[in-house]
Amino acid sequence: MAASTTATALLDKGVRAIAAAVRTGTVSRRAVVEAALERIAALNGPLNAFTDILAERALAKADAGDRASAPDAPLAGVPFAVKNLYDVAGIVTRAGSLINRDDPPASSDAFLVRRLEAAGAILVGALNMGEYAYDFTGENAHDGHSLNPLDPTRMSGGSSGGSGTAVGSGMVPAALGTDTNGSIRVPASFCGIWGLKPTFGRLSRSGTFAFVPALDHTGPMARSAGDLAALYDAMTGEDPEDTHQTPHPAPATLPGLDEAPDGLRIAVAGGWFKRGLTPEAQRALALAAEALEATREVELPGTAAARAAAYVLTNLEAAGMHFTRLQRRAADYDPETRDRFLAGVASPAVWLTNAQRVRATYRAAVAKVFEEIDVLIAPATPFPALRSGQQEIEIDGRTLTARPNIGLLTQPISFAGLPVTVAPMRLSGLPVGLQIITRPWDEATGLRVGRHLEKAGLTLSSGI
Amino acid sequence: MAASTTATALLDKGVRAIAAAVRTGTVSRRAVVEAALERIAALNGPLNAFTDILAERALAKADAGDRASAPDAPLAGVPFAVKNLYDVAGIVTRAGSLINRDDPPASSDAFLVRRLEAAGAILVGALNMGEYAYDFTGENAHDGHSLNPLDPTRMSGGSSGGSGTAVGSGMVPAALGTDTNGSIRVPASFCGIWGLKPTFGRLSRSGTFAFVPALDHTGPMARSAGDLAALYDAMTGEDPEDTHQTPHPAPATLPGLDEAPDGLRIAVAGGWFKRGLTPEAQRALALAAEALEATREVELPGTAAARAAAYVLTNLEAAGMHFTRLQRRAADYDPETRDRFLAGVASPAVWLTNAQRVRATYRAAVAKVFEEIDVLIAPATPFPALRSGQQEIEIDGRTLTARPNIGLLTQPISFAGLPVTVAPMRLSGLPVGLQIITRPWDEATGLRVGRHLEKAGLTLSSGI
Repeated sequence: MAASTTATALLDKGVRAIAAAVRTGTVSRRAVVEAALERIAALNGPLNAFTDILAERALAKADAGDRASAPDAPLAGVPFAVKNLYDVAGIVTRAGSLINRDDPPASSDAFLVRRLEAAGAILVGALNMGEYAYDFTGENAHDGHSLNPLDPTRMSGGSSGGSGTAVGSGMVPAALGTDTNGSIRVPASFCGIWGLKPTFGRLSRSGTFAFVPALDHTGPMARSAGDLAALYDAMTGEDPEDTHQTPHPAPATLPGLDEAPDGLRIAVAGGWFKRGLTPEAQRALALAAEALEATREVELPGTAAARAAAYVLTNLEAAGMHFTRLQRRAADYDPETRDRFLAGVASPAVWLTNAQRVRATYRAAVAKVFEEIDVLIAPATPFPALRSGQQEIEIDGRTLTARPNIGLLTQPISFAGLPVTVAPMRLSGLPVGLQIITRPWDEATGLRVGRHLEKAGLTLSSGI
Repeated sequence: MAASTTATALLDKGVRAIAAAVRTGTVSRRAVVEAALERIAALNGPLNAFTDILAERALAKADAGDRASAPDAPLAGVPFAVKNLYDVAGIVTRAGSLINRDDPPASSDAFLVRRLEAAGAILVGALNMGEYAYDFTGENAHDGHSLNPLDPTRMSGGSSGGSGTAVGSGMVPAALGTDTNGSIRVPASFCGIWGLKPTFGRLSRSGTFAFVPALDHTGPMARSAGDLAALYDAMTGEDPEDTHQTPHPAPATLPGLDEAPDGLRIAVAGGWFKRGLTPEAQRALALAAEALEATREVELPGTAAARAAAYVLTNLEAAGMHFTRLQRRAADYDPETRDRFLAGVASPAVWLTNAQRVRATYRAAVAKVFEEIDVLIAPATPFPALRSGQQEIEIDGRTLTARPNIGLLTQPISFAGLPVTVAPMRLSGLPVGLQIITRPWDEATGLRVGRHLEKAGLTLSSGI
């Protein structure tokens, strides 16, 4: 196959441009899917984003779509891929592990895959990820590293590393990731793309392989604020199967996206969130603060304790999820993951309940801060993408293991459950993502603020 | 003071009758409060329901209400009391413990106390309870037992035992309790009164002393279905301070209360919920099933595991809450409570995460059952009120410790988070409560079904 120039060009214009062209008949779904498959064929070898390429399924779906006519489908013909912890009918949900390869293939698609396809999008594959999502690097001992599309000597970030690589390199205009402590936001920051970690409980998690049920979030990654909003809006429906979802009547985010964020009280996160920032992260933050006229700085009280508690809750709850597997297949884990799970297994329940208490306290303290402000901004990572294989990071004079600590700035926010849009701030070298944090259920404002930065030319965005 | 005959008679007619009489000026708030205080003075000595009688506060509130005119107040002049784990400004929130007596007095009233007073009700005191709510007997090692108003040689049931005693004896027409595993439903069953355990997350818990944050519910106890509905409706407002509350637009329950429950698919809970029932509990269930034409029997799959998991989650999370106190004041606990807390402290975190997993599975299984039915009925306790001091119960051939096991039939339902109205089924001897279980947020249907039984003359109800 040789994809049409139009279709190939559309891949870089993004989700809404593709859907518009498909809806008007400018391009067929098949042409777009072929263009995506061609890009994947060219780029996936060096970048290692995909673990499964679903050409046959995608082309069949494209042809079926081209035959039928669905003029209203908001995501008509949009190729997308999902982190390989989302169920995809017929393939094994491996969650980046060796062990799960022995599981039977999934019998049906995850709820969000079905939502996106119901809106016209077309799944083209599953994506590399950190083992069992317990990772911030995008490196995988079994599948190899997913590489940074902006500089392949660097990390994609994790654990949704393949999602970052696939979207950042333009193989697909959209991908789904999951974010427990930063696993959407870190690769978005490293790969220079947009990512949305919605309010805890907002999007269904049915048909995904759980890491930490108390903290797991699903969400989209894309290459502009508007694409992110379009994907998110298509996925917000209520899933009666998902006991973790909290139904909420929050409105669609795309309609008001271009309204200026006037009158919003926007503050810069101080304290914990400013410590140990590299000049690049400082610059990303300063650019955004200036554009948003955010002169005020606020601290989220108790963030150090909250981050520690998020770490403990993650470790202990994840260990509980893995207990039986650890008994039977300990040798088949990446040792770095296994050792952390084993530490969790050996921990007392009071640590877990303490962590839960700290969470409730932190949530309340954060809610109080948000009585005075509408938006809080902070870098998503204290640095641009790290070098592949880098084992340690230095933060504020302390040397830390890289893999569990890259998400230092993302982890407290997901612990509080707040929605975060990550805007990739354009710098002279590698980008750094900006976390745009809002109140629960107010994804719309975060996306709107991101769109404002995008319109000001401050972000890496495509097809706007 | 000598309360008026009208006011004294009104006490037994209940919440709505009092409010109506106060609103029309038939009786003053002061007269009603005086009547309640007189009853309390007469009955509390033998029955031991109150730990704090707030005569001065209540009379001042009554006088202020009588001076002002609030013709719309739905609970005008209704005396009520709260389990002493609700904050009441100026008194220490002891939660049935010795240890908490050293705490400073609460600085403000709990949210639900404020809600009820905003609706015109008048707080007259705080009520005896099982130590730290870890109890199903209504017996307290420090404050003495709250006795069953129907037979003082028997238990009131716990842990909201004082609430059961106070309402069942007519000292007050309404009380607040809390229910983690059955602590509203068990005393309602033993004392022959109505109790509502709402959907998990429905009512605010702000200003209450937590037992198990993952499972604690607040709720009302009263002497008719309509009174219960009126109290509940007054309390459903959103509390921005309570991070555990889930705001939900469920409608008020009182307006449709008298609609016949026609067309509802009502089933009897089988399996776990029919095992080991005494003839009295069987009779209570049969009376209700017949009146409701509930010929179908359904099982909630996984209930044995769910109940075990609820037990573990309760024990481990509660132990975590008490860790510091156990280190410092172990000798000041009731040994029966302390030993259970210590067991929890010594338990590994994987037990807790397993319990949480079982809960998610059980919730989903229960939701599936409720696709086929609208209402499920089961006894609240397998027996009428036990003898005071009884240490053991026999269930289905097994001898169990009474205190933690009386709630065998209530515990799985709160674990699933479903709302339950307890209707006190009138029997020839002591009553047994019926659990009327509905879908999350559908308190209205449960109350409506209760009201139907009440109209059929099958329940112990006052002032209907």
